[in-house]
Amino acid sequence: QQMNPPVMPSILLVISTVHAFQYTELVQYVDSHQEEYVEALRDWVAIESDSSNVLKRPDLHRMMEKAAQKLRLMGGTVELVDIGEQELPDGQMLALPKVVTAQFGNDSNKHTVCVYGHVDVQPAKKEDGWATDPYNLTDINGNLYGRGASDNKAPVLAWIHAVEAYQALNMELPVNVKFVIEGMEETGSNGLDAMILAQRDTFFSDVDYIIISDCGWLSTRPALTYGTRGNCYFFAEVEGPKQDLHSGVYGGTVIEPMTDLIGILDTLISPSGKILIPGIRDAVAPLSDEEWRMYQDIQFDIDHYKSKIGVNQLMYSNKVDVLAHMWRYPTVTIHGIEGAFSDPGTKTVIPAKVTAKFSIRQVPNMDPAMVKKQVTDYLHSVFAKRKSPNTLKVTMVIGAKPWLADTQHPLYEAGKAAVKRVFDTDSDLIREGGTIPIARTFQDVTGKSIIMMPIGGFDDGLHSQNEKMSRYNYIEGTKLFIAYLNEVSQIRKTTV
Amino acid sequence: QQMNPPVMPSILLVISTVHAFQYTELVQYVDSHQEEYVEALRDWVAIESDSSNVLKRPDLHRMMEKAAQKLRLMGGTVELVDIGEQELPDGQMLALPKVVTAQFGNDSNKHTVCVYGHVDVQPAKKEDGWATDPYNLTDINGNLYGRGASDNKAPVLAWIHAVEAYQALNMELPVNVKFVIEGMEETGSNGLDAMILAQRDTFFSDVDYIIISDCGWLSTRPALTYGTRGNCYFFAEVEGPKQDLHSGVYGGTVIEPMTDLIGILDTLISPSGKILIPGIRDAVAPLSDEEWRMYQDIQFDIDHYKSKIGVNQLMYSNKVDVLAHMWRYPTVTIHGIEGAFSDPGTKTVIPAKVTAKFSIRQVPNMDPAMVKKQVTDYLHSVFAKRKSPNTLKVTMVIGAKPWLADTQHPLYEAGKAAVKRVFDTDSDLIREGGTIPIARTFQDVTGKSIIMMPIGGFDDGLHSQNEKMSRYNYIEGTKLFIAYLNEVSQIRKTTV
Repeated sequence: QQMNPPVMPSILLVISTVHAFQYTELVQYVDSHQEEYVEALRDWVAIESDSSNVLKRPDLHRMMEKAAQKLRLMGGTVELVDIGEQELPDGQMLALPKVVTAQFGNDSNKHTVCVYGHVDVQPAKKEDGWATDPYNLTDINGNLYGRGASDNKAPVLAWIHAVEAYQALNMELPVNVKFVIEGMEETGSNGLDAMILAQRDTFFSDVDYIIISDCGWLSTRPALTYGTRGNCYFFAEVEGPKQDLHSGVYGGTVIEPMTDLIGILDTLISPSGKILIPGIRDAVAPLSDEEWRMYQDIQFDIDHYKSKIGVNQLMYSNKVDVLAHMWRYPTVTIHGIEGAFSDPGTKTVIPAKVTAKFSIRQVPNMDPAMVKKQVTDYLHSVFAKRKSPNTLKVTMVIGAKPWLADTQHPLYEAGKAAVKRVFDTDSDLIREGGTIPIARTFQDVTGKSIIMMPIGGFDDGLHSQNEKMSRYNYIEGTKLFIAYLNEVSQIRKTTV
Repeated sequence: QQMNPPVMPSILLVISTVHAFQYTELVQYVDSHQEEYVEALRDWVAIESDSSNVLKRPDLHRMMEKAAQKLRLMGGTVELVDIGEQELPDGQMLALPKVVTAQFGNDSNKHTVCVYGHVDVQPAKKEDGWATDPYNLTDINGNLYGRGASDNKAPVLAWIHAVEAYQALNMELPVNVKFVIEGMEETGSNGLDAMILAQRDTFFSDVDYIIISDCGWLSTRPALTYGTRGNCYFFAEVEGPKQDLHSGVYGGTVIEPMTDLIGILDTLISPSGKILIPGIRDAVAPLSDEEWRMYQDIQFDIDHYKSKIGVNQLMYSNKVDVLAHMWRYPTVTIHGIEGAFSDPGTKTVIPAKVTAKFSIRQVPNMDPAMVKKQVTDYLHSVFAKRKSPNTLKVTMVIGAKPWLADTQHPLYEAGKAAVKRVFDTDSDLIREGGTIPIARTFQDVTGKSIIMMPIGGFDDGLHSQNEKMSRYNYIEGTKLFIAYLNEVSQIRKTTV
């Protein structure tokens, strides 16, 4: 085959025949290995690979090594790529988790896909309101609860299991498969951009397509994702007295940093959700008629969405507005304040230094550098009006651009076909309100086409308490990836 | 003596003569026991008796038992008074720390003083910014750093050592001395009011004067305190979604509780410190000319005060305004927010339920019940204007009244004399911005006269990082208490 491809008659037919046969066997294999897959996920969830907590860095290193070891045992060509160190706020340097790269197959007659995923997680503590230990995967009615279960450990494992299934049945992979697995996604993929740039002409040179499964469906209908919002994450620090003060003893004499901080935070967004920072909305691409029509057709039940998150009223009341503000308009969220009293109970303290954390989701055609300037200038001007003796420092700690793909690209057509095969339904074409910064980087640096193919459920509770992955999505998702590899192999090379 | 007082000639002269002799010996005794006193304080500070943290309750119980045991070993009549349980926010019941009462002497010809103190402390963690372990008393240049060192463990120990010194030298106590030591002061003296009321006609029936040393000097000049502010501590809870949400996925569709909370907090106080809650200032007693003159004469260096707390500018620029707003005008402090993201690093979360903690210091003639209504009504009206689907709950968890004494009372004259003897200077007559709710309770329930006699330094950092007690104040304070017991014994019974 490899030596003489032109003589093969009707290559598409051959592949297609072999594929049909393989698919049934592969599905049977997956179904009979469900419990092993769940155990593998339990094993991964047990590692508290929280990339935002520097104290958990040893766990994170262990997680990367575990992922690498799994891929090695499967016969992949695996590397743990050193991406350097990060500087902590106190000036200390801390080693970043290495990036795992792996390769299965290098047949130049085949397409090569590169699967991107991450195995770091958001913070989680039982006392945040989890019903179960967040690091002990717990099956309740077919839902597998655990931090990182859906974001992004199960999808990464599903890809690994997809490759493994082909191997177990001695079937040749229909495409070459590469992996890039990182450990800093939840805090902004520190170091990954430079690594991609550095390996653009080596590891990434033969990659045709990049697949990302770090997202979720919008409803019970399987989806393909063609856009994400970016994210500009800010720290606004107000500093006053040199140390915390007793509010009884000093209250009334000092201008309190917390009052100043609350005052400036209150100028970011109106009660009805309008961003008040001048200029922010000017760059936003207008909603086209075509988009409006697309949104109209998407399966999205507002009442179900409301009941899922437990609110009686959303910011907007009709489907198109809700979807548009979820996907393609910017928004401001105030996450919290560091340095103030945040424990249960009472404390009569005037906090000396308080740092608000807030972020603005980016959409085409916003530019993070411009947003940084707009936010910083605005907050300083608002703060100056207070005539406070305290000092304000505004820093942008994450600046991730949005990403948008062409839904008519063969990569998406292949995705629609795979969804049709596994789930016997059409795909929803959706965008993602969250940020997968790496999509934009892959696009800008490698110039390759990218698809986002989620298997997470619409109610998985990413970043919140009681995150879960359903067995159904995990197992059927594995089948989807198996089917997709085959669909991608049928994309004509000329259309790339 | 006890059986036949009328026949004694010139009783005042006798006591006075004996006193002069005793004082020198007592001072020598104290000076030669300094290291033991420091070790005793180290022992007490080592117990993390944080009354606001329910997980530390066993330590708090241990602290009360330790105080009781010390008084027992000195031969006092000691009781550990059960004051019941507290209800936690989740409905669980938790035993309150017992109140320690003790009695030394019951000579009906002598005055009886009751010393009040507390041995619970504010929260403290090394990572809050302490230079030393807050529960390991550390002597740096004569300052003893540790949580609770000044507030209020060293003053309680100084009183104990004062009694012990008389005993060690086989000198009769010039007055009967009682102790009331509690363990819930930092969270509002839960259960103590009821205990005082219950023992009004027993333990407190023969008490003539109540002495409180739970405060500090204003400068390097020793002070007597004749007033305190009260405190109304509020929780304002805004609840929205049923759980925390990913800010990328959901941001723009939900009306975020944090935005609502910031919005209503920003309406409490103006940038220049004006309380914006309607009606709050109406009840405040106007500043009299006499007060103005008193404040003018008090030793208070604004520049030193500013440099101590590390700010360039205060809310007010002249001494009288600063003192008045520290002592006799109300103020609002926002302490922090529970439920939002408060750790270092970044988290892209929409917190589902956030609870602001803020307090308003009370002055004569404000009424906590009225303040509660004013604050609650105001916040609900402000919140209603936002038309948010989230819910607001406002609760007042502490409602402590202010207290004010007559500085011409013999109890204060005795204090001035004791200060003069020990420090060879006149006392500053000051008020306290903080709250010692029990002063007001003692006054209202027992009808006894009260004096506040601080020994803490003006820069002890109560409730903040690096709290300390200087050796000088601790040791000279012990002498002050020794001298004061004698001065009180000379108050003519008829003037009581």
